[in-house]
Amino acid sequence: MSERGKTHGAERGLDRLEGFSDAVFAIALTLLIVEIKVPGAPQGPHGYSDLLKAMAEQWREHLALLLCYAVIGAFWVQHHYSRRIYAKSDHGFSVLNLLFLLAIVFIPYPIRAWCYHLGTTFEPQAAVTMSVGLALTACAWMGKWFYGMSGRRVMDERLAPDFLRQMTRRYGLATLVQIAAVPLTLAAPRPGVSLALLCVAFFLLPQPRPRYKPGQEPSGEEKTSA
Amino acid sequence: MSERGKTHGAERGLDRLEGFSDAVFAIALTLLIVEIKVPGAPQGPHGYSDLLKAMAEQWREHLALLLCYAVIGAFWVQHHYSRRIYAKSDHGFSVLNLLFLLAIVFIPYPIRAWCYHLGTTFEPQAAVTMSVGLALTACAWMGKWFYGMSGRRVMDERLAPDFLRQMTRRYGLATLVQIAAVPLTLAAPRPGVSLALLCVAFFLLPQPRPRYKPGQEPSGEEKTSA
Amino acid sequence: MSERGKTHGAERGLDRLEGFSDAVFAIALTLLIVEIKVPGAPQGPHGYSDLLKAMAEQWREHLALLLCYAVIGAFWVQHHYSRRIYAKSDHGFSVLNLLFLLAIVFIPYPIRAWCYHLGTTFEPQAAVTMSVGLALTACAWMGKWFYGMSGRRVMDERLAPDFLRQMTRRYGLATLVQIAAVPLTLAAPRPGVSLALLCVAFFLLPQPRPRYKPGQEPSGEEKTSA
Amino acid sequence: MSERGKTHGAERGLDRLEGFSDAVFAIALTLLIVEIKVPGAPQGPHGYSDLLKAMAEQWREHLALLLCYAVIGAFWVQHHYSRRIYAKSDHGFSVLNLLFLLAIVFIPYPIRAWCYHLGTTFEPQAAVTMSVGLALTACAWMGKWFYGMSGRRVMDERLAPDFLRQMTRRYGLATLVQIAAVPLTLAAPRPGVSLALLCVAFFLLPQPRPRYKPGQEPSGEEKTSA
Repeated sequence: MSERGKTHGAERGLDRLEGFSDAVFAIALTLLIVEIKVPGAPQGPHGYSDLLKAMAEQWREHLALLLCYAVIGAFWVQHHYSRRIYAKSDHGFSVLNLLFLLAIVFIPYPIRAWCYHLGTTFEPQAAVTMSVGLALTACAWMGKWFYGMSGRRVMDERLAPDFLRQMTRRYGLATLVQIAAVPLTLAAPRPGVSLALLCVAFFLLPQPRPRYKPGQEPSGEEKTSA
Repeated sequence: MSERGKTHGAERGLDRLEGFSDAVFAIALTLLIVEIKVPGAPQGPHGYSDLLKAMAEQWREHLALLLCYAVIGAFWVQHHYSRRIYAKSDHGFSVLNLLFLLAIVFIPYPIRAWCYHLGTTFEPQAAVTMSVGLALTACAWMGKWFYGMSGRRVMDERLAPDFLRQMTRRYGLATLVQIAAVPLTLAAPRPGVSLALLCVAFFLLPQPRPRYKPGQEPSGEEKTSA
Repeated sequence: MSERGKTHGAERGLDRLEGFSDAVFAIALTLLIVEIKVPGAPQGPHGYSDLLKAMAEQWREHLALLLCYAVIGAFWVQHHYSRRIYAKSDHGFSVLNLLFLLAIVFIPYPIRAWCYHLGTTFEPQAAVTMSVGLALTACAWMGKWFYGMSGRRVMDERLAPDFLRQMTRRYGLATLVQIAAVPLTLAAPRPGVSLALLCVAFFLLPQPRPRYKPGQEPSGEEKTSA
Repeated sequence: MSERGKTHGAERGLDRLEGFSDAVFAIALTLLIVEIKVPGAPQGPHGYSDLLKAMAEQWREHLALLLCYAVIGAFWVQHHYSRRIYAKSDHGFSVLNLLFLLAIVFIPYPIRAWCYHLGTTFEPQAAVTMSVGLALTACAWMGKWFYGMSGRRVMDERLAPDFLRQMTRRYGLATLVQIAAVPLTLAAPRPGVSLALLCVAFFLLPQPRPRYKPGQEPSGEEKTSA
């Protein structure tokens, strides 16, 4: 291994790291329901005269659940996809992955802040909170990517360089737009938040199939085991 | 691969997707207990003169836990079984699976709404909420199935066509009954809810053993590793 | 396969079922901390004049956490051990396993009921609740065992019959004592509960190493991969 | 196997134990967000005149989340790393691992106690609680280590003895400093807590690459599959 692509600490495979990360994603998605207390439940709303109306009045909670689910789900889709790109792990990659997962764990806070203040006088402050939260999450994702790209440390060595450059452009551009959404949100809260959410929606679209150096295409079996 | 059965985005194996989905199911089942606060606990009921009576007065919470567990458990049993039918995954399948899991994560809300209003004036509204919730969950399941069936995109190619047709009939019929339970619930809340729950109970029954094209039966080892 | 040992529904390997069950155990153990709110936290105790005393006054919560952890942990140890005995899964086994996991998910309720009423006038009622809860959990475990033993449906066929008989005696005896603890608790709450907890502690002890039919001992590699 | 390195109960591989432990870590990290209720949420702060200020006033909750995440994350990094050192599991190792996981599950309690009383008259008591909590967690980790080292019971037999001695020194020293932080915290709360946290931060640094006996270096494939 060349000095340039040196890994730090003990090298390890990716399977366990991915299983751990998948568990964090799965819990983050499933915990969302804990925040919504059904009308009539001991800790839920009481004293309503119409159940459907009482449930409709919880629209902020429902919107928060949907948005959190969509954002965490979109990052999970990319995370799942990237398993075909990253090939191993080292200490630095594990620690950066923990930072990225911290952003995933924390992201419901700014999203809920926005949902609970939409249409109130605090909407501008909440919108900035949300777009900063989304931008930091995107930056944490990019941190992992750049660490992996630097010297192709943990990348699958068989991937075609132009494929990796294409992905760097895609992820980099999306992150830049995500960051640009912050000043836009300061100037115009709703367009700013919309741009930030569009960026996340982009990650729900299918990404390009990995391309390999000539003759280094992995077998069909390996593809479907990753 | 023929154009007809084209997958979208990078093809991947199913193991990691299944591990992720299993984690969501496991958490959804285990989180149910968080909703019940024991009498005498800081956030639980206080001031009772008989503990057993105080616990019995929590019958709505206990019923909700049992029903949520049965419904999520029944879908897990089918999900677990379907691993023998689906053979791989692509981007569209991952996204549809996320939608299906959203239904699983959210289903305690309508079930609890029903349990907390059973026998009250709000029971008819709550019953409709519950049967709509169950019908949408069944539809999300069917969405995955039809996506997989269309061009046999992600199905195990060795399965006998008549087996797949049989399963489509079974799942399709169950979903149609589930949908029919919604207008029935509008007209007659308890029979409607009963029909919807019977449909779910049907999924707790054993499904037919997969049948394969002649000479394409997988080895015993493969069967028990899936 | 003889009629006697027929499995129901599609046969499957045990790995995914075990991963799913392990996730339920892991979540059940980790969720316990959610019930204890630190003094000074928004939902925790306030207005104390001595922090250490305020934490000591939460001894019921701490005791409940320890007991729940020990009980769920003891069942996990047996569950983990039994992977060497069970060799596959079928529909009935999956459904019985879901029932067993329901007992695991629910067991904090009776344990907490006891901890929150220890030394109060409700202790006798709470003690019965707890010993019934522990007995039902043991019965759910035995249900899985007897289902597997009947015709050796899902057991590893290489195990020595006398080893399986020994385990049936051990588990059966422990369950009988667990059940006998219920009437004892009715007559004498503390001795009854102590007997029930001793039974669980027995499961924390190492179980006998599996013995095999002559010449059917699995390889060392298989042993450490299970 | 010599008497000296005898394992207790049925020997098993480490994969399932590690998957279970990883799930506990993943849940412990992800549950942290449940403690922070967004301003404006049904159970969150209300009646603020400035949203950003209301969020800033939750600095104790945010600090607690960060510290808990860093501490649990640091132990996860070591736990993940140690998979290259431990090679199998037995009954005693499983039980000690459950004890270690209990410390991980419980550690948010003392950390939160400190965060909620920082700068108040209760800070000295809270600081002692936290450094005792961290010291006990380190001791639980050492318990696993010494059990594995005694007769090299569950250690990878190919590891170079001097590598194992080096790790014993590193872990042992860190644990001793962690324990020494307790009396220091009694005398001087902030320096004591700082020392305890520095110890944890040390575990976030990369550990030495495992060294093997001559000619017993595992293959690259095995390294990246662990």
